[in-house]
Amino acid sequence: MIIFQPHGKRIAAAQGETLLDAAKDAGIAVNALCGGAGLCGKCRVMVLRGERNLSPPTEAERRSLSEEDISNGFRLACQATVSGKGPIVILVPPESRAERQRLLLRGLEEKISPQPAVRELNIRLKEPSLKDVVADVDRLLRILESEVGAKVKIDYEAMIRVPHVLRRGGWRVSVVLWRDREVISVEPSPTGLYGFAVDVGTTKLAGYLVDLRSGRVAAAASMMNPQIAYGEDVITRIKFASEGEGNLRVLSRSIIEGINNLIGEACGKAHVSTREIYDVTVAGNTVMHHILLGIPPNYVALMPYPAALQSPVDVKARELGIDVNPGAYVYALPTIAGFVGGDAVADILATGIHTAEEISMLIDIGTNTEIILGDRESLIACSCASGPAFEGAHIKHGMRAISGAIEHVWIDPETLEAGYKTVDDEEARGICGSGIIDVIAEMLKAGLIDQSGRLNSEAETPRLRGDGNSAEYVVAWGDETANGHDIVVTQNDVREIQLAKAAIYTGASILMRHRGVRPNDIRRVYLAGAFGNYVDPQNAKIIGMYPDVPLERVRFVGNTAGSGARMTLLSVEARRAAEEIAGKVRYVELGADPEFQTEFLKATYLPHREPERFPSVIALLK
Amino acid sequence: MIIFQPHGKRIAAAQGETLLDAAKDAGIAVNALCGGAGLCGKCRVMVLRGERNLSPPTEAERRSLSEEDISNGFRLACQATVSGKGPIVILVPPESRAERQRLLLRGLEEKISPQPAVRELNIRLKEPSLKDVVADVDRLLRILESEVGAKVKIDYEAMIRVPHVLRRGGWRVSVVLWRDREVISVEPSPTGLYGFAVDVGTTKLAGYLVDLRSGRVAAAASMMNPQIAYGEDVITRIKFASEGEGNLRVLSRSIIEGINNLIGEACGKAHVSTREIYDVTVAGNTVMHHILLGIPPNYVALMPYPAALQSPVDVKARELGIDVNPGAYVYALPTIAGFVGGDAVADILATGIHTAEEISMLIDIGTNTEIILGDRESLIACSCASGPAFEGAHIKHGMRAISGAIEHVWIDPETLEAGYKTVDDEEARGICGSGIIDVIAEMLKAGLIDQSGRLNSEAETPRLRGDGNSAEYVVAWGDETANGHDIVVTQNDVREIQLAKAAIYTGASILMRHRGVRPNDIRRVYLAGAFGNYVDPQNAKIIGMYPDVPLERVRFVGNTAGSGARMTLLSVEARRAAEEIAGKVRYVELGADPEFQTEFLKATYLPHREPERFPSVIALLK
Repeated sequence: MIIFQPHGKRIAAAQGETLLDAAKDAGIAVNALCGGAGLCGKCRVMVLRGERNLSPPTEAERRSLSEEDISNGFRLACQATVSGKGPIVILVPPESRAERQRLLLRGLEEKISPQPAVRELNIRLKEPSLKDVVADVDRLLRILESEVGAKVKIDYEAMIRVPHVLRRGGWRVSVVLWRDREVISVEPSPTGLYGFAVDVGTTKLAGYLVDLRSGRVAAAASMMNPQIAYGEDVITRIKFASEGEGNLRVLSRSIIEGINNLIGEACGKAHVSTREIYDVTVAGNTVMHHILLGIPPNYVALMPYPAALQSPVDVKARELGIDVNPGAYVYALPTIAGFVGGDAVADILATGIHTAEEISMLIDIGTNTEIILGDRESLIACSCASGPAFEGAHIKHGMRAISGAIEHVWIDPETLEAGYKTVDDEEARGICGSGIIDVIAEMLKAGLIDQSGRLNSEAETPRLRGDGNSAEYVVAWGDETANGHDIVVTQNDVREIQLAKAAIYTGASILMRHRGVRPNDIRRVYLAGAFGNYVDPQNAKIIGMYPDVPLERVRFVGNTAGSGARMTLLSVEARRAAEEIAGKVRYVELGADPEFQTEFLKATYLPHREPERFPSVIALLK
Repeated sequence: MIIFQPHGKRIAAAQGETLLDAAKDAGIAVNALCGGAGLCGKCRVMVLRGERNLSPPTEAERRSLSEEDISNGFRLACQATVSGKGPIVILVPPESRAERQRLLLRGLEEKISPQPAVRELNIRLKEPSLKDVVADVDRLLRILESEVGAKVKIDYEAMIRVPHVLRRGGWRVSVVLWRDREVISVEPSPTGLYGFAVDVGTTKLAGYLVDLRSGRVAAAASMMNPQIAYGEDVITRIKFASEGEGNLRVLSRSIIEGINNLIGEACGKAHVSTREIYDVTVAGNTVMHHILLGIPPNYVALMPYPAALQSPVDVKARELGIDVNPGAYVYALPTIAGFVGGDAVADILATGIHTAEEISMLIDIGTNTEIILGDRESLIACSCASGPAFEGAHIKHGMRAISGAIEHVWIDPETLEAGYKTVDDEEARGICGSGIIDVIAEMLKAGLIDQSGRLNSEAETPRLRGDGNSAEYVVAWGDETANGHDIVVTQNDVREIQLAKAAIYTGASILMRHRGVRPNDIRRVYLAGAFGNYVDPQNAKIIGMYPDVPLERVRFVGNTAGSGARMTLLSVEARRAAEEIAGKVRYVELGADPEFQTEFLKATYLPHREPERFPSVIALLK
């Protein structure tokens, strides 16, 4: 008998069966990226009771787990087999659960009680007669006002539909109310009630079609931000927007068209009509937020880098050209500063660090990486120009985390051979952000690169070839890939990642100095980002992306910007909280920090020029 | 010394000078349509003191004035000359004052203290700095909120202009606030503050560009309702709107384009930019109101004839496509019923009959004529399908009251010769509504037609020619007209007017029965309409258009719908009153009245089949 915690699932296990198989039988998804070969180390579980009913640790386990881990009862689920008849109690820690991101985010969202901004009412009206000739619209509003107990307005587009709809519905109609203040739609029969949450990244757009009744995500879709054509980072986009009369409009249109594509795709998947989408929320960095709304972002790039708008806004979707129900509003999350936007507010909302008693650090990795540090008393934030490398740009075989992207890599330190896993287990087509982080950390551990980031062309493996700036490591041979060509990580790719991670670390480090805290004071580190399905926190630490904090305090939480956007879609209370957050966070301008340059240069090392900043990583590398 | 009342103007007059000339010298405009020839009788004044210092009544005066008039001290100003040195006190009654309509309406509007829905604030902002990086829009709204003492929203189109405007204005900007609740515009420098009031008639559109600071009408414009192409009356328009998918949109577009033309014309005249128009009010009958707003009017034509919307609405002008400042709202006056609309509400507002202690009757003559009867306790209303004859349609030489339209006609009962006055004193081009009413009343008095409306082909004048249905009376000979052709009133024209006036009288009569009042109980009759500059109340009574009420109680008040629309433009208090009026007036459905048919047939006579209904007219005709 094995009991899996925290699920509480019990299952009878056969002698010789691995814990991984038993978990599978119990319906529990445990990570097993290498397919149970004992290589990836992702299936770590903790034996709470009945250790003696399991086989002793294997060679593979001793490679993957530290002495301390083993003495603490950690095992690899793919290696430990049942050897005795007594009860075994196993804890599957969060990081070993498959589809953690989804689970975690659902968990975060479930903390809030659903209270969307829109609701549907089914109304029955009396037919007019010579004795009762109250006008159609007034007739409807009077009933609604008595229902709601307050004055109710009606959207113009909804209003002009009333006469026909009342008669088509035989004086029974479905009304969608926004914030109990405004009728935004009338239909002759009950309607689906959906919302669409959008995370507008500089490089990537992600959209979630949410059933507002159940809170369930009915479908998701993502794509490159079509604005990429006008520049890779926000500064280039601002420049483009400022250069010509109609350029802002071009940028706005391209992002709106992108969102309309996401809406179309998600609605297609879920068989939902776009007219059934009655609410839209948008989280994005300040520049994306401004461009989406058609607000000139020009001055964000100029000292003192002011945002044009911080408050949340409700704009009719039709004013923006977003293709949902014509009465629907778009709620744009508030921004914090010119370079810390609604995506950061969403991150904070999703992780709840604004209500935590202990100090947390949140790092939302993207083309601009936002870092937030603090607790419920106060929060400070900064923005780092980390560039689009983690999203696959500037990387030779970089790509988004879509089907066929290598998202996880492990390198055998003995043979220097690589193993990997692709998204959807398709043939490899390139490497996404999480894969690159893995490759560099694994190469560092295996001695294939040194701490300065230089590829060791002397390493004895056919996978490492060339030297100097043309050195590269083959992650996947051509006979395994979709297009028949080798997939490699080049010396230049490593440099790109070094710059990107240095930008992030420097921001984190300056924030810590501002707040006067040391790594050990930080009780939680949240790694967020829409660029991969799962980033290995250990590997991210090994390359020095974030301060050396004990691993059990670190969580990859995925696309928290999208998650926060979904929370504001599901709850007006979350909108109130978002507004409070936006007013509370203090922005720290890194560019104005005198130590920025020297901090940055030291941070380009792997993990850092000053080994004392990363004692646990240095110990591991030794 | 002559004193003119109620003006209180004093002037020394020379012996032999006419009162008309003396009045002119005193700057008082007295009507003198016939140019002082003693023909038109429009310059009636009353001698309050000093009768013996005037010449005795002339032959012309004895023709124009009744015995009773003369014994009451009435004189024609063009005939009475100064003959003594003693003081003379003259009363110029309202109906003898030139440009009465404008004066009267300004008077009506001045009763309300101006408090438009929009106001301009000139705001000075602090420039952002690294120590104060509040976002542009938030920065602006915070100042406004402290100014206004309440939460202030910002219009989307205004919002996206804020960053550029703040910097162009050097952090001093002009803000236009709507109802102290919403910023609808931001400009880098102070702006004109105009509003546009529209009276949307079935046949005619009239628009008024109003300076909201002074309350002054800066320019006016009018035109035929372009919807005329889709049917002459509301029923035909409803039919057209109901017949095809896009037809409502066609009708809406045509009316909006018409309004945009009026706006362009008025702005051109007054050298005002359309962007300086920050508010629009619209009064129209219910069908025009619905079509303008894009609301299907279909069900207005079906029992129980419900309006689709009674409440007043504020719709963004840009939603309707009206070409004013993009942040401006259009306020559509509330309607009363399917066939009594916002124009009737505006009429009531302008005349103030809803606050009067004594009973008033208001008749707004148009293609649909609305009649309202009552006092401050209660009001009832009906709508009469009087047709477009008073607006010049269905009349052989009918036209709108624009330059060259014959607006007044007098016929010498001895010679049967006609005199007339045209709008702007241009060469005659046709006859407008007030001219037709004059012709028929004058022909009746001169015996050129009988009470059944038949032209007397035996009359000895070359002006009357043909017989039976082809009989006609020549008002202007070809050598006096713009196109060289005679302008005539035909037998058929008389029939059209008989039907139209019968519809109106019948409505008035049924309302009186509902309310239980007789003509003498009605202390005020307001004749309203946009179809002419001035209708002669006496002649309108002679043809039997309204009940036989003493003439001094009757006033032609011109386009009160336009006047009420202007009042709601100038005062939010007037909007509140309009809403109260709309909720108070009880609609009487004439079609449901069993006596309608017989009443109507009797009313086609001139003035009526039952002479006892019009004792004063019958006395006059004898």
